[in-house]
Amino acid sequence: MADQYAQTGEDKRPTGIPVIRWEEPPEGPVVVLLDQTRLPSEEVELVCTDASALVEAIRSLAVRGAPVLGIAGAYGVALAAARGFDVDEAAVALSGARPTAVNLSVGVRRAAAAYRSALVKGGDGGAAAAAALDAARTLHREDAEASARMARHGLALLDELLPGGGHRILTHCNTGSLVSGGEGTAFAVALRAHRAGRLRRLWVDETRPLLQGARLTAYEAARSGMAYTLLTDNAAGSLFAAGEVDAVLIGADRIAADGSVANKVGSYPLAVLARYHHVPFIVVAPVTTVDPATPDGAAIEVEQRPGYEVTEVTAPQVPVAGAGGGIPVAPLGTQAYNPAFDVTPPELVTAIVTEEGAVSPVTAEALAELCARSRQVTIS
Amino acid sequence: MADQYAQTGEDKRPTGIPVIRWEEPPEGPVVVLLDQTRLPSEEVELVCTDASALVEAIRSLAVRGAPVLGIAGAYGVALAAARGFDVDEAAVALSGARPTAVNLSVGVRRAAAAYRSALVKGGDGGAAAAAALDAARTLHREDAEASARMARHGLALLDELLPGGGHRILTHCNTGSLVSGGEGTAFAVALRAHRAGRLRRLWVDETRPLLQGARLTAYEAARSGMAYTLLTDNAAGSLFAAGEVDAVLIGADRIAADGSVANKVGSYPLAVLARYHHVPFIVVAPVTTVDPATPDGAAIEVEQRPGYEVTEVTAPQVPVAGAGGGIPVAPLGTQAYNPAFDVTPPELVTAIVTEEGAVSPVTAEALAELCARSRQVTIS
Repeated sequence: MADQYAQTGEDKRPTGIPVIRWEEPPEGPVVVLLDQTRLPSEEVELVCTDASALVEAIRSLAVRGAPVLGIAGAYGVALAAARGFDVDEAAVALSGARPTAVNLSVGVRRAAAAYRSALVKGGDGGAAAAAALDAARTLHREDAEASARMARHGLALLDELLPGGGHRILTHCNTGSLVSGGEGTAFAVALRAHRAGRLRRLWVDETRPLLQGARLTAYEAARSGMAYTLLTDNAAGSLFAAGEVDAVLIGADRIAADGSVANKVGSYPLAVLARYHHVPFIVVAPVTTVDPATPDGAAIEVEQRPGYEVTEVTAPQVPVAGAGGGIPVAPLGTQAYNPAFDVTPPELVTAIVTEEGAVSPVTAEALAELCARSRQVTIS
Repeated sequence: MADQYAQTGEDKRPTGIPVIRWEEPPEGPVVVLLDQTRLPSEEVELVCTDASALVEAIRSLAVRGAPVLGIAGAYGVALAAARGFDVDEAAVALSGARPTAVNLSVGVRRAAAAYRSALVKGGDGGAAAAAALDAARTLHREDAEASARMARHGLALLDELLPGGGHRILTHCNTGSLVSGGEGTAFAVALRAHRAGRLRRLWVDETRPLLQGARLTAYEAARSGMAYTLLTDNAAGSLFAAGEVDAVLIGADRIAADGSVANKVGSYPLAVLARYHHVPFIVVAPVTTVDPATPDGAAIEVEQRPGYEVTEVTAPQVPVAGAGGGIPVAPLGTQAYNPAFDVTPPELVTAIVTEEGAVSPVTAEALAELCARSRQVTIS
């Protein structure tokens, strides 16, 4: 069951958006999430007391974005363990809550492995639950550190590609604190540029159908005092044509072994536009986003989401109307094509920036080397 | 003043959407418009009793789309004349209601010229008003005939480019009966393909920010029984990548002498995607859309519309909330970039289809020849 309570809204923290945290009130442990479907108008937290509440929160996009999904999955396993539920069952349900994001199942597997390993070593349920929680917390902390490293590598790359400074960066969807244990992926690079006085403008794609750019990236940019401008996704072409975009920075939900990038629908058209206008197209994602088991773009399963996300418009304060709880904007019975992601082939990606450094040009060999380096670091 | 009344909604006409008409009730002549901002949920007509009501209807997009704007402009002049208002003043106000659409001022000039010519020939105010109305009606009828001819030329071109039949056409914005004295421009081609049994699917871009695709094109497609599917503008990339688009068909708001095409924002990204995927990109527009006085794309003034169209979501049944009367979806104070149009250079346009035939490849010479042919026809 997920409970919810609203914050007073008087909070003026410039950073440190409380996206996900583990709490242990007297009634038992809980995972507390910021309900991202209510932003930017309300800061409402969801209190998840079991894994199925977390599954529902993941499905409804109350929590979304690849890195934080991994953290949520790991905490979900820890929660099931701490509450004495069947951990294997919880792990299966959590992993299956969203099909495309590889980080989710990586996070789930990591906490579940820690749990099982503790049991194998003779620990009791309590010790195993503690091991799962420790794994989740470690993942959370590592993700924050990875964010900082991606931001550093990303800004260094930007400065190298665009030595003039004063970067005008176009971004899509939401890739900041709200999707991360730290300050995010692509957004963290723009934020670092801003703090260094080298961000001239952040162009924010609104990102239909769920408007994560308008609702979430604009929220984070405003909160951080960045110079930002919102646009409809299809107005990006005009910006490119006018020479107003120096680089495109996006995140990734999954990167195949060949460097194909699955990310929020609308990323691929930006990659084509960027290529046509000779603008760097840069993907920023932690190494865990690379899935060696997925050979190429064709092997990436793209989630098809319900048509009502397109045929209806939803906004936090709107009274329920259509099948999806929104306001119908198309005639009743209209069928919609609504892929959650698209796939950008490696030849359109200028660079992939990870916490271990950047890969450019993007090749299977260079990516494999980076992943191997990452595994060495983890093992050592 | 514009008055409005709702239709019963029981009307089951398969075609013949009553977009604009001249009526002469006992209280005096009026121009009746279908309020397109209320579609698809309600069919509400606006009754304009003077030119300033028409100006307001044009500004608010109650009536929109290049060809029908010309007709509206001409009827507006006729209305001012019939009601005894200052015709020159009305003509200036009508022409300036939307800056980009050349048809609007062409229509206004045509009715105003007929009015003045009648006066010069010694006619009284009544005769001059009748001449203006006659000019508006002729423009209306010519536009319907032009639609039919564009549809014929457009389908012939499609059949030539894609001999297999079973066309899968992607379109953007709304270009059907709602923008025309007849069945429209790009949409009329798809409709003709549908009636000929050669339309496999009409892919309908929702067309942010005002959702003319979702609200209007889907409404017309549904009303005509076409196989259509709605998508967010940024999902078009996935369709191209999957090989699901055989041709892109769009309208135009203005075509420069060199063949640069100003059309609804989002057209240019489609042109770039079409080129990248070797898919024909076809512009369908009457010859009046070609403006010989505009040498090239850089000379086209692109209307910048208010930011609240992006920062707020509007839908017919929603209670008023934000500055633009919609629901805020971005943080308060968010600045938006909101060009109404973009410009596609001629090298990305496979063909321009007019009522006088198709031009392909698109060159200044071929366009000029077509326009000259059109003028001969008009003069003869």
